[in-house]
Amino acid sequence: MAVYTDVSDDELRAFMAAYDLGEVISCKGIAEGVENSNFLLRTERGTFILTLYEKRVAPADLPFFIALMEHLAREGIPCPTPVRARDGEALRQLCGRPAAIVTFLDGMWPRRIQPFHCAGVGGALARFHAAGASFGMTRPNDLSVAGWRRLFEACRARADEVKPGLAEELGAELERLERNWPSDLPRGVIHADLFPDNVFFRGEQVSGLIDFYFACTDFLAYDIAICLNAWCFEPDGAFNVTKARLLLGAYRAVRPLGAAELDALPLFARGSALRFLLTRLYDWLNQPEGALVRPKDPLEYLKKLRFHRDIAGPGAYGL
Amino acid sequence: MAVYTDVSDDELRAFMAAYDLGEVISCKGIAEGVENSNFLLRTERGTFILTLYEKRVAPADLPFFIALMEHLAREGIPCPTPVRARDGEALRQLCGRPAAIVTFLDGMWPRRIQPFHCAGVGGALARFHAAGASFGMTRPNDLSVAGWRRLFEACRARADEVKPGLAEELGAELERLERNWPSDLPRGVIHADLFPDNVFFRGEQVSGLIDFYFACTDFLAYDIAICLNAWCFEPDGAFNVTKARLLLGAYRAVRPLGAAELDALPLFARGSALRFLLTRLYDWLNQPEGALVRPKDPLEYLKKLRFHRDIAGPGAYGL
Repeated sequence: MAVYTDVSDDELRAFMAAYDLGEVISCKGIAEGVENSNFLLRTERGTFILTLYEKRVAPADLPFFIALMEHLAREGIPCPTPVRARDGEALRQLCGRPAAIVTFLDGMWPRRIQPFHCAGVGGALARFHAAGASFGMTRPNDLSVAGWRRLFEACRARADEVKPGLAEELGAELERLERNWPSDLPRGVIHADLFPDNVFFRGEQVSGLIDFYFACTDFLAYDIAICLNAWCFEPDGAFNVTKARLLLGAYRAVRPLGAAELDALPLFARGSALRFLLTRLYDWLNQPEGALVRPKDPLEYLKKLRFHRDIAGPGAYGL
Repeated sequence: MAVYTDVSDDELRAFMAAYDLGEVISCKGIAEGVENSNFLLRTERGTFILTLYEKRVAPADLPFFIALMEHLAREGIPCPTPVRARDGEALRQLCGRPAAIVTFLDGMWPRRIQPFHCAGVGGALARFHAAGASFGMTRPNDLSVAGWRRLFEACRARADEVKPGLAEELGAELERLERNWPSDLPRGVIHADLFPDNVFFRGEQVSGLIDFYFACTDFLAYDIAICLNAWCFEPDGAFNVTKARLLLGAYRAVRPLGAAELDALPLFARGSALRFLLTRLYDWLNQPEGALVRPKDPLEYLKKLRFHRDIAGPGAYGL
């Protein structure tokens, strides 16, 4: 749940004067997304999303994100397309924050994941990776293996408040991942946060991918591992191998995976689990006074981490 | 900011099967309203608002609210019109809560009130009162003078935590209001909560009135007094007599006010100020652990109460 900034009708009118979108018919804050303020904007020309970038998105990264969405849209990926103002600029200022208008995407994100959703996201991820191959910009992944030790150290002293023994377990895992992390697999633009609330469906078809504000340049197979964690575990913590098989099968039907990528999947899945565990743990231990967003449970990702640590190989994913 | 209940795509599909609204295209929680969960719903047939009634709305009152909106819409008041399902029922169940779909209204509510807004709301309130005259149902106002003592007693012991001397000042005011409250003025359906966030404008015209969930049967002039408090004070606490004159003038152009109603305005304005002061004070003193909604400042209404207490008569409103 978000909307951190309230946009007044006066400020909005002044902002919209730079665009060719006609009169504003309505503008309502959306209770989704936790990083930015999002508004559903209806004008005489159609329906759009207005985003104000709040402090967790670095302004220096915004040109990368905007250019990526423009590139993906040109390549036929169903994603929000930035709308340029009359002066050609898509990235502007509103209420003292960077702001952009993007096209509205039909569809709803799935609350209860069914197997067909996993096939849908697998195919969509592969098409996204393929489309990204011709994108010219790069952005390092601050939240990959090189960034985890800093996060871990920031949580280490208090990790056991959440679960006794957690600091030791995470420290050992981090060491293993740092030692074994590969360096020579296919790289490209990854979404890096393709959770169910970022994938819209109409019926059984993917109708949109959203929220590219963690996108960066990294191993493509690591992006798959993020999706295995986000889409293939049941609410009770059980790994659903049918969903994993569908996700991976749909991905490979679009973009084949090499043997080295397949072999790396369990390690990437452990790494991805540690990444979300650490950021959730940090947020859990550092809840701001009066916060309007409840932090997510970090221990959900400890269970996922242990699952991937204990399997024999990528065959456990139904391959 | 609201949305207390998350509606899954599966639950929504099952719910929508009772309606003739076509396929759901999207459904997004709106970060407005603090009493209910509201979703902006797009279907093949248009744009609607889906409301789930949360615990602060008594289910027994819902037929009154739904019938009122239907009545007002028939009378030409721009307000949400309940959409009936194929079986003729507008009030249904979703996620274990009462739920209804209403039509979407264009417009934005004004964040910075300008004089023309006050003229707009005055006229709209009078048309609402006139349209309500032919509405057959009644609902007592639990939050009028008879309900304030209970609220006051629930806050009395801790009121001075908010401001020293507050309990004594409110107790004396309450006694005066109880003693002097009139009994023989024109009554009818009042909105009872016509704050700026419940009035939409397109340009300088009112395009919609929303949120009828405090509507009840009471003195019509009391509803005007609520609007004087909600629309005619500046952010610095100053009373803007130009705004009051415009609000009252536009009201009287549609529905003339009798001398007794005019004379009662300052008392009603004091009462209305006490009503919002008390409910805000109660919410301030009883914030639930981990609440997602920040309570409003009760003392804003103490300043308003004192203004109306200290004026010589309704002439202070620019009459």
